[in-house]
Amino acid sequence: MSHERGEFRLIECVRERARAHPSVSIGIGDDAALVRASSAAGLLVTTDMLMDGVDFVVGSTPAELIGRKCLAVNLSDIAAMAGRPVAAVISLALPRHHGRVLAEQLYRGICALADEFEVGLAGGDTNTWDGPLVASITVLGEPPDGGPVLRNGARPGDWLLVTGPLGGSLGGRHLTFEPRLRAAARLQSLVNLHAMLDLSDGLASDVRHLAHESNVGVVIDASAVPIHADVDPTLRPEERLAHALGDGEDFELLLAVSPDDGARLLSETCDDIKVFHVGECVAGRDCLLRDADGTLRPLPQAGWEHGMD
Amino acid sequence: MSHERGEFRLIECVRERARAHPSVSIGIGDDAALVRASSAAGLLVTTDMLMDGVDFVVGSTPAELIGRKCLAVNLSDIAAMAGRPVAAVISLALPRHHGRVLAEQLYRGICALADEFEVGLAGGDTNTWDGPLVASITVLGEPPDGGPVLRNGARPGDWLLVTGPLGGSLGGRHLTFEPRLRAAARLQSLVNLHAMLDLSDGLASDVRHLAHESNVGVVIDASAVPIHADVDPTLRPEERLAHALGDGEDFELLLAVSPDDGARLLSETCDDIKVFHVGECVAGRDCLLRDADGTLRPLPQAGWEHGMD
Repeated sequence: MSHERGEFRLIECVRERARAHPSVSIGIGDDAALVRASSAAGLLVTTDMLMDGVDFVVGSTPAELIGRKCLAVNLSDIAAMAGRPVAAVISLALPRHHGRVLAEQLYRGICALADEFEVGLAGGDTNTWDGPLVASITVLGEPPDGGPVLRNGARPGDWLLVTGPLGGSLGGRHLTFEPRLRAAARLQSLVNLHAMLDLSDGLASDVRHLAHESNVGVVIDASAVPIHADVDPTLRPEERLAHALGDGEDFELLLAVSPDDGARLLSETCDDIKVFHVGECVAGRDCLLRDADGTLRPLPQAGWEHGMD
Repeated sequence: MSHERGEFRLIECVRERARAHPSVSIGIGDDAALVRASSAAGLLVTTDMLMDGVDFVVGSTPAELIGRKCLAVNLSDIAAMAGRPVAAVISLALPRHHGRVLAEQLYRGICALADEFEVGLAGGDTNTWDGPLVASITVLGEPPDGGPVLRNGARPGDWLLVTGPLGGSLGGRHLTFEPRLRAAARLQSLVNLHAMLDLSDGLASDVRHLAHESNVGVVIDASAVPIHADVDPTLRPEERLAHALGDGEDFELLLAVSPDDGARLLSETCDDIKVFHVGECVAGRDCLLRDADGTLRPLPQAGWEHGMD
């Protein structure tokens, strides 16, 4: 790591902040940081790289929100394992022009969110170059007691639930969403989570990962998919559903639980947790959409895919 | 993390490989990986981001060597703590043109070095964009018994040693260097390492970090600095020294030990370990160069600095 080889005053400030965190026993300023794991199970690790022109637009998107998003997508991955984030390392490729100001704004957004979820900043690598901004954050977290919730534990008959309405995120919510760490911890304390993931590519795409890893099929109820207020209300219902299924960047959690646990989460006894029952797991491998009249059709192939030759 | 959302066959192959590692109990394919820490002390974490046109040149530099370097610089950081690397997560921003072929070549270089040092691949994030290649790797490692070797433990009177000759690395060695993990472990077993770091910016620059963190001054002996055969032998001695002090990317270790331990490492009893005695720590805060005639002058400000407005 080489945060310290740059000329940032900022780094000194971040370093002071990092020193204060109880889980980061050696922080920024050495070749590596030391992050304590309170559990013998080890540490969760997740990483995401975000790029100017792909995940945000420098100049149009406020840089504090860019920084916030770069950390938030990683916290969402930790939430998807029902984990608790502990520490983050942050690598930046900064454009040469106004790079210092940009870095300060990015860090302001990163630090505010890190503070909110008590995430220590354990180091990083700050670079400048002639290219656009690239930010790569790795987050370490603690798994919950009993181990992390994986994608492969769903069973035929399980209910599929999501933690919030979907679609329209690219209008701005993709920058300001709350990583569902609190919801994940609460859900994990209430029920037996068979499988869970966070919705980054869109429900229609991400539910396939859960189905594939769990070796089950899924049926999504078209009429039960909660559509976010960010989706244009003047669109036809079918178009609104397509946005909810395919826009992506919702960063809500998708979970599979037993019908009993699902009913419990939907009942008044769990009125502090808001979930939506969007479908079921079934035997087989098909991913289907059930229309309001009961007709089954293939779940549309939607969601973002990399284009590359 | 979203290795799985791309269309790489490659990822399946990497995933198979990751499954085999004893310390990676949940690997690629879920929202986060789980890395076991055998020590209650926790895990070392270090990260480095490398960019096309800065750290290598795609098209001129063989892509396997690019991949190798991206991992090697991180392993060098773990070596500098006298740690043992355990797992790596790898984020790539791939150029759209020939991105898939490039990714395969990068991973070939990464995997070969990971195998050599028994590093598990625990996940990552593979993206494509219209910009140049950016690779960001984070490595987790185990600290040695007794805790990692920091930069802040050098004392006045300590000897300064380096693990190999310096300079001329940019001719090619910066791509093929061996991370000094074995040397670090051996040194740590033989003597009490007061402070250590890896030489990335060049001895003249990096020794200042050790001096600063340890609150000591340093004197480097001009005639004792080992100059690598990669430095042009036709240059004048002063120019050759400047290359050894300032070129950077040597990735040798710089260590501070007591004079007794230093003498021991240089003696025949430690003939399996090759170190060079380049100077001493002194009271105060000055960083000085001692010429062959004993004259002291300020250590030249050399080494790479970020340029940014």
